[in-house]
Amino acid sequence: MITVLAGGVGAARFLSGLIQIEKPENIRVVVNTGDDFILHGLYICPDIDTIRYTLTNDVGSQGWGRSNETWHALGELKNLAQHAPERSRATDWFALGDRDIATHLYRTQRLREGADLTQVTGELSQAASLRLKLLPMTNDRVATMLTMEDGETIDFQEYFVKRRHAEPVMSIQFEGNRQAKASREALDAIADAERLIIAPSNPVLSIGPLLALPELAAVLRSQRHRTIAISPLINGKAVKGPADHLMAELGLDSSVVGVANYLDQYAGHMVADEADIDKRASIEALGFKTTFAPTLMSTPKRARELAKVVMSATLDD
Amino acid sequence: MITVLAGGVGAARFLSGLIQIEKPENIRVVVNTGDDFILHGLYICPDIDTIRYTLTNDVGSQGWGRSNETWHALGELKNLAQHAPERSRATDWFALGDRDIATHLYRTQRLREGADLTQVTGELSQAASLRLKLLPMTNDRVATMLTMEDGETIDFQEYFVKRRHAEPVMSIQFEGNRQAKASREALDAIADAERLIIAPSNPVLSIGPLLALPELAAVLRSQRHRTIAISPLINGKAVKGPADHLMAELGLDSSVVGVANYLDQYAGHMVADEADIDKRASIEALGFKTTFAPTLMSTPKRARELAKVVMSATLDD
Repeated sequence: MITVLAGGVGAARFLSGLIQIEKPENIRVVVNTGDDFILHGLYICPDIDTIRYTLTNDVGSQGWGRSNETWHALGELKNLAQHAPERSRATDWFALGDRDIATHLYRTQRLREGADLTQVTGELSQAASLRLKLLPMTNDRVATMLTMEDGETIDFQEYFVKRRHAEPVMSIQFEGNRQAKASREALDAIADAERLIIAPSNPVLSIGPLLALPELAAVLRSQRHRTIAISPLINGKAVKGPADHLMAELGLDSSVVGVANYLDQYAGHMVADEADIDKRASIEALGFKTTFAPTLMSTPKRARELAKVVMSATLDD
Repeated sequence: MITVLAGGVGAARFLSGLIQIEKPENIRVVVNTGDDFILHGLYICPDIDTIRYTLTNDVGSQGWGRSNETWHALGELKNLAQHAPERSRATDWFALGDRDIATHLYRTQRLREGADLTQVTGELSQAASLRLKLLPMTNDRVATMLTMEDGETIDFQEYFVKRRHAEPVMSIQFEGNRQAKASREALDAIADAERLIIAPSNPVLSIGPLLALPELAAVLRSQRHRTIAISPLINGKAVKGPADHLMAELGLDSSVVGVANYLDQYAGHMVADEADIDKRASIEALGFKTTFAPTLMSTPKRARELAKVVMSATLDD
């Protein structure tokens, strides 16, 4: 059994490679929920949905949302938002496609009926005939919050979508992480796994929330010898998103070495891009085994090749 | 100033006639909110929306929902609902069009932000350039509940939409009506009006919730001499919906005489269809003045003609 710790787009691409070479039934994915938020009353789980849409070949060309999407609700919302009071979040900056809205409507209804997020995610996966198991890291509320240079603290979506992750961040908090319990299913998936993979997701924004759950972090530490991390940075640059400059803003080394430093309690093997082969010694000095390979998943074939590399990376006994 | 007490489709048709002969700025509409409900997390106000869509020439041909509507979210929801647990209300029986959803998203967001329903309804009206004032009867929660012959109590939408108002009803309750306060704006609209009109809406289901608010009912009683009711029944039949058989099921006379009986504390003048002229004596015996005229609003012109009749109906001094 394989367990993947995942954020959104990068993880989804990696998983689309992994299911080409491994039975989906053998894969469990523990997904970040720190980006989840409620907008217009809808309970939205961006990372879970991105993975689900990607793996069912129903993802938008931008890497999120659904393919063949229409935007009629959003078009109307745009008109309404123009008449909203200034401080309202009734707005059109979060791209809700009509078919995507159905996911949120269903999830919101089921959560209101008392189902937990793990159960609802299972129902949504089943409806999409998704055969791997998507497991939210927790059924409780954990919110990734960012404190900006001017001292203002904003939530993930405001940072990422509304402000296009362009403004410098001073610190990150995971609100609720001490009260939240990692889900039983997520903990089991980590404890039981023969091979654990930390997907090439933003370490601080997408993997950070998982590590902020004390029980989950402890189980993961105990599995360090079975855990392979994939660097999302190539030659110091993020393929997508703000990982590079965000790590620098937070005082971390914005390179695969910084990623290794961030994850060294949790992973024993680092898969990095071949462009970073000069950093081998620095990474290995942190106690990692290393594999260098092409990590840019620009095509399904490249995603599959990366998955092969990760599946053949040697583990400690 | 004219104030209309309104339910959904019948009231909307009447108002579309009234605004042809009166300045919209002089019209306030106190609208039933007993049908309001939360589905998939969305706060839905069927009567308010039906009136708003009708008066902005954006209503569906069925009399509710929006014109030029698409159903992409609902199509997806249908697929998801098939995988929902049996008792779930995650479902597709309530027809949510994509553009209609935007209304509910906006309303839900604004209510979550602390705005009251009166304010949000004003914002939605303004966005649609609606010049008459739509006033929810209350900002509090009142839910029309129906007890069926088998003793089961269900909410309005389950009765009306899911079960297509086909099953016999034993009694109706307006849950929360004693705790709810009629809105200040609704009370003022009734107290200030020179002419009050009870629209041809289902008396027990659509006007009943307004009368179940004690303060609103009291102000309305004090305005009886200024109030004209329009019968929604023609020759004992409802134009649309269950008013006729529902009144019979509740032990009321399912004719304009039953309507007059139901409203005799609140209205001093009854406008009934010319087909019911034989009931003049029975209605007048209840203390009503009467006017008989064509009341079927099958075209905008007929709606206008009915509005003219109502506007020229004599009031007591």
